[in-house]
Amino acid sequence: MRIDIITVLPELIKSPFEASILKRAIDANLVSVHFHNLRDYTTDNYKSIDDTQFGGGAGMVMTCEPIDKCISALKAERNYDEIIYMTPDGKTLNQGIANTLSLKENIIILCGHYKGVDQRVRDMFVTKEISIGDYVLSGGELGAAVLCDAVIRLIPGVLGNETSALTDSFQDNLLAPPIYTKPRDYKGHKVPEVLFSGHAANIEKWREEQAYKRTQERRPDLLDD
Amino acid sequence: MRIDIITVLPELIKSPFEASILKRAIDANLVSVHFHNLRDYTTDNYKSIDDTQFGGGAGMVMTCEPIDKCISALKAERNYDEIIYMTPDGKTLNQGIANTLSLKENIIILCGHYKGVDQRVRDMFVTKEISIGDYVLSGGELGAAVLCDAVIRLIPGVLGNETSALTDSFQDNLLAPPIYTKPRDYKGHKVPEVLFSGHAANIEKWREEQAYKRTQERRPDLLDD
Repeated sequence: MRIDIITVLPELIKSPFEASILKRAIDANLVSVHFHNLRDYTTDNYKSIDDTQFGGGAGMVMTCEPIDKCISALKAERNYDEIIYMTPDGKTLNQGIANTLSLKENIIILCGHYKGVDQRVRDMFVTKEISIGDYVLSGGELGAAVLCDAVIRLIPGVLGNETSALTDSFQDNLLAPPIYTKPRDYKGHKVPEVLFSGHAANIEKWREEQAYKRTQERRPDLLDD
Repeated sequence: MRIDIITVLPELIKSPFEASILKRAIDANLVSVHFHNLRDYTTDNYKSIDDTQFGGGAGMVMTCEPIDKCISALKAERNYDEIIYMTPDGKTLNQGIANTLSLKENIIILCGHYKGVDQRVRDMFVTKEISIGDYVLSGGELGAAVLCDAVIRLIPGVLGNETSALTDSFQDNLLAPPIYTKPRDYKGHKVPEVLFSGHAANIEKWREEQAYKRTQERRPDLLDD
């Protein structure tokens, strides 16, 4: 899989790709991630990528031309399955979308900044608009990093033990059950006895009950789907 | 505002705080962000912070002791309004939660990694569990960065123009209307005429209509609230 990220702030988004699972996936050639600085696609001396809003109002708007030039240059090199724009009014990311995207070959992720991009960029180039949640961030960069993390960890071979991702929250519409590790007693707080029973079926039953109970208490909406 | 972030991977989360709005907020002393490496609170030679799950199963679990030591050391220094654990089964972050947290003085954010923390950490220390969305990430670090960004930009004085945050998506349960900047005609794609009318009331009316239309098309659930 190849991911091209278009941003005005490549330095903001780099560290998540230089550690832990994302780094390992990149080092193992399971995914390649390329950052494109939008200012490299400007034509004026000021390298300007934004301008004031038509009709007035606070906040700057990212202009069409540098984004057009960058996307066109990438599309001239290869075919892209999706050109994704990170925006709070996009479709809310969930595990299903992450699963689908993890099967794609080439994707572009466009990060908005300031008030966002000129609407015509969205109309002309973007094939999918994704939001990571109902809150506003200072730019699309963190959203892009979150999307990459959610997607890349699902690529076969990225996680050491593939069953690990399958038992995560959301993969079966249930939250994960409580988990415990050593010691058995920490300052008087004890691990549930069933986990020491050595009885695999009982442990599995307890975990299913706990996952269901937790989902019902915290996220009954997941059970309705 | 002071934010203490507890993590096993401080290097993963640093770059978002070293650029753009978060950096400016930190430089202006509107917020201070402190990273604590959990391995500095271990007592064994291997600096181990995790162990296998009781009852069996894939994935490592973060142990109680280093987290206890780190949180206790911080709490000995000052009072904290919230100790937040980033977890996919927490309460889903929204703009309202971000608004509330932006008024706090001191918060701790605990990042899980691997399968997450021992349940007893959550029972003993955590006052609030937050998820940034219905998807699984390789750790809580990106979630913590997202939470910080959503919260810090709301602290008065952080954004250059305070009206800028008020016209974002979600602040009034409506998505933002389309925005446009120069040129008026980009490769035949034109900016709506009303935005050149100079008639402030008409422009405002058009924007409200567009915001409502977009919300109805994309996120009718927001209008139900």
